[in-house]
Amino acid sequence: MLLRVDADRLRADFDALGAIGATGDGGVDRETFSAAHLAARAWFHERATAAGLETRIDGAANHSAVLASRDPAARTLLLGSHLDSVRRGGRFDGALGVVCALEVLRAVQDSGLDLPVSLEAVDFTDEEGTLIGTFGSLALAGRLTSDDLAGPRCGRDLLVAELARMELGEEGILGARRDPASLAGYLELHIEQGPVLEQAGIDIGIVTGIVGASSFSVIFEGAARHAGTTPMGNRRDAAVGAAAFVLGVRETAANGFPGCVATVGNITTLPGSFNVVPGRAVLRLECRALSSSRLAALEQALIERAHSDAESFGLDVTVERVGHVDPAPTDAQARSAFESAATDLGLTTMELASGAGHDTQSLAAITPSGMVFVPSKGGVSHDAAEETAWADCLNGANVLLNTAVRLAEDTRRQRAAS
Amino acid sequence: MLLRVDADRLRADFDALGAIGATGDGGVDRETFSAAHLAARAWFHERATAAGLETRIDGAANHSAVLASRDPAARTLLLGSHLDSVRRGGRFDGALGVVCALEVLRAVQDSGLDLPVSLEAVDFTDEEGTLIGTFGSLALAGRLTSDDLAGPRCGRDLLVAELARMELGEEGILGARRDPASLAGYLELHIEQGPVLEQAGIDIGIVTGIVGASSFSVIFEGAARHAGTTPMGNRRDAAVGAAAFVLGVRETAANGFPGCVATVGNITTLPGSFNVVPGRAVLRLECRALSSSRLAALEQALIERAHSDAESFGLDVTVERVGHVDPAPTDAQARSAFESAATDLGLTTMELASGAGHDTQSLAAITPSGMVFVPSKGGVSHDAAEETAWADCLNGANVLLNTAVRLAEDTRRQRAAS
Repeated sequence: MLLRVDADRLRADFDALGAIGATGDGGVDRETFSAAHLAARAWFHERATAAGLETRIDGAANHSAVLASRDPAARTLLLGSHLDSVRRGGRFDGALGVVCALEVLRAVQDSGLDLPVSLEAVDFTDEEGTLIGTFGSLALAGRLTSDDLAGPRCGRDLLVAELARMELGEEGILGARRDPASLAGYLELHIEQGPVLEQAGIDIGIVTGIVGASSFSVIFEGAARHAGTTPMGNRRDAAVGAAAFVLGVRETAANGFPGCVATVGNITTLPGSFNVVPGRAVLRLECRALSSSRLAALEQALIERAHSDAESFGLDVTVERVGHVDPAPTDAQARSAFESAATDLGLTTMELASGAGHDTQSLAAITPSGMVFVPSKGGVSHDAAEETAWADCLNGANVLLNTAVRLAEDTRRQRAAS
Repeated sequence: MLLRVDADRLRADFDALGAIGATGDGGVDRETFSAAHLAARAWFHERATAAGLETRIDGAANHSAVLASRDPAARTLLLGSHLDSVRRGGRFDGALGVVCALEVLRAVQDSGLDLPVSLEAVDFTDEEGTLIGTFGSLALAGRLTSDDLAGPRCGRDLLVAELARMELGEEGILGARRDPASLAGYLELHIEQGPVLEQAGIDIGIVTGIVGASSFSVIFEGAARHAGTTPMGNRRDAAVGAAAFVLGVRETAANGFPGCVATVGNITTLPGSFNVVPGRAVLRLECRALSSSRLAALEQALIERAHSDAESFGLDVTVERVGHVDPAPTDAQARSAFESAATDLGLTTMELASGAGHDTQSLAAITPSGMVFVPSKGGVSHDAAEETAWADCLNGANVLLNTAVRLAEDTRRQRAAS
């Protein structure tokens, strides 16, 4: 049996949400704990309450709407995403997933189905990293540590001030951890934020996993010399070694590691004058791959390339690791359920990796997790120009709905079989 | 007849001067109009007065010592350089030329020669550009304009404040201009600030000219996209185009324009995050050549390369001219006189271009001008490690002395012949 979401209700909710923190050019400004972000969360709870759903806020400020099963022993299937945005971000990123999760709960409620799991729509705190990044989902997964709180991305002072202002304590945050045994799984609908689905003309992207990412600071050292008096053949120009490496990074990823990405996101040259040969070049390097072994091999190839480029131009080089996130594969059963639901709805699908981080990454570590993408026009994201056709949004909502029902029914069959 | 400078007197003066503004590591801090700079200029005038020479200060604060000819109609042969330094610079750059010019006047005086020209040792104001760059020599040459004073390198506010503090008015500065008909020529001794003489094992470098320089801002524009979600083949990465261009600049200058230099001194990438493909890269480009035609050809080759690199990577590029200085060839008679003097002294010579700017550049536009270099150890300059062997300094002083005498005698012969 196929269910359908209420398209008009969903559309009205999506548009109402997009007006909160709207920047006037199609985008939204809803950084974590900003007035607009708090207003969006309050709106989410109002909409849930209006639908007769239970609402909850945990110690990490994650906001939930719950459609409880009649079975008091039922586990919970989480459906979620986030209502915060980057500064001057788009109105689809995160918001679409939360609104559709809420609509799934309402559609199941409307259908009169008695599922053997409770359904919980979650708006996770600070996915985008105004403070820490996937803060709420890490806390819920029990993967946020005291160290994360001690050295957050935004700086300790700002975090302390913001947590105090929001009346959030460390004990409560760490206490947001949910017992994996209480969970039936996690599903997330999100926009792709890349061009793959649009270019392939595919409706639904089934995410095979969230790529792991490693970042490095790569420093080339030569000799700063007078740009007028130092002949070309006598130079140890750090910018030249850095330039060879930037091209090398592209070649290495594109030719040797299909499906992976590697990026030099920033180059700083010192001293930086017109008339001095750069003595030092500092690069920000990042690479991403879907498996740990692939990521390690890519890292090694890039580091070797940095050393060979330095040698070619008589430079010294140091490579320092700055960050690392493990790859997070999604659950095979969830992928299969997405595939079946989409096919039943007459939609085309393809598997793809998520190059961006998502709350799914946090949840995948503790419960069977799945994620689907809908196409992003032009692959644009984190920008007011971020756009997904409404038909694609609706397709995503219906896939999420029928996948949730399918997985819920599977738990009934599993219980019967056990 | 060969003259010789008083080596002990010269050495004592050079060492005394190097102690003024000494940084303790062999370098000096004598930025224009700093206390140390003013102390050095006062010391220069004290030494001139002690030698019985006349001293003068013009409206641009150029400091001179004069050995007047007995002929009241005699023109003046200028010998000069500068006592200011870059921040934490070396003790040879500029200072050697001023101390040796002073010593030439004393040596001629000691010799009892009655030259048909007056000799004037000049310490030019602000060669290094704390405020404007070759400020004093441009003023003396009548080439400093009201526009130069309106938009100086240091910013108008600082210039106004410094000129007021030094009691220098615009009228006086522009009035420092000397009538070219009153000048017999200009000679300058300087350290090379590059590695050519040392590597060739040559005593004296005869400067064929000061190279012209053009500088540009080169801006590559692509598309800033998520570094995780944008496949390698879908990128318009401005840093990649910039990198190809940095290598291209090196190739173009090194392979197509021997003797010329081209440098990318700075690269700025935007937005500059680890996780965003750079959408924009801004480069500082400079190139130098000894002739105007060569400089124009090099500029054109570099601009064409910027466009072809942009096209290769699907980027847009704009090239904006930021600055330009014409090449300044030296005088053939002065070069020949240097050559003869050096040969008579048993020294080896070679011709070479000056890649750095000097006061000679200003003077060459109004009077026959010549310049010689002595070797710089390791080519290092603008640094405390700047060093020239004392024997080389002494050689330079003797070449300057005998060249000045030779050119002075030439004017007597020219007058007799006319």
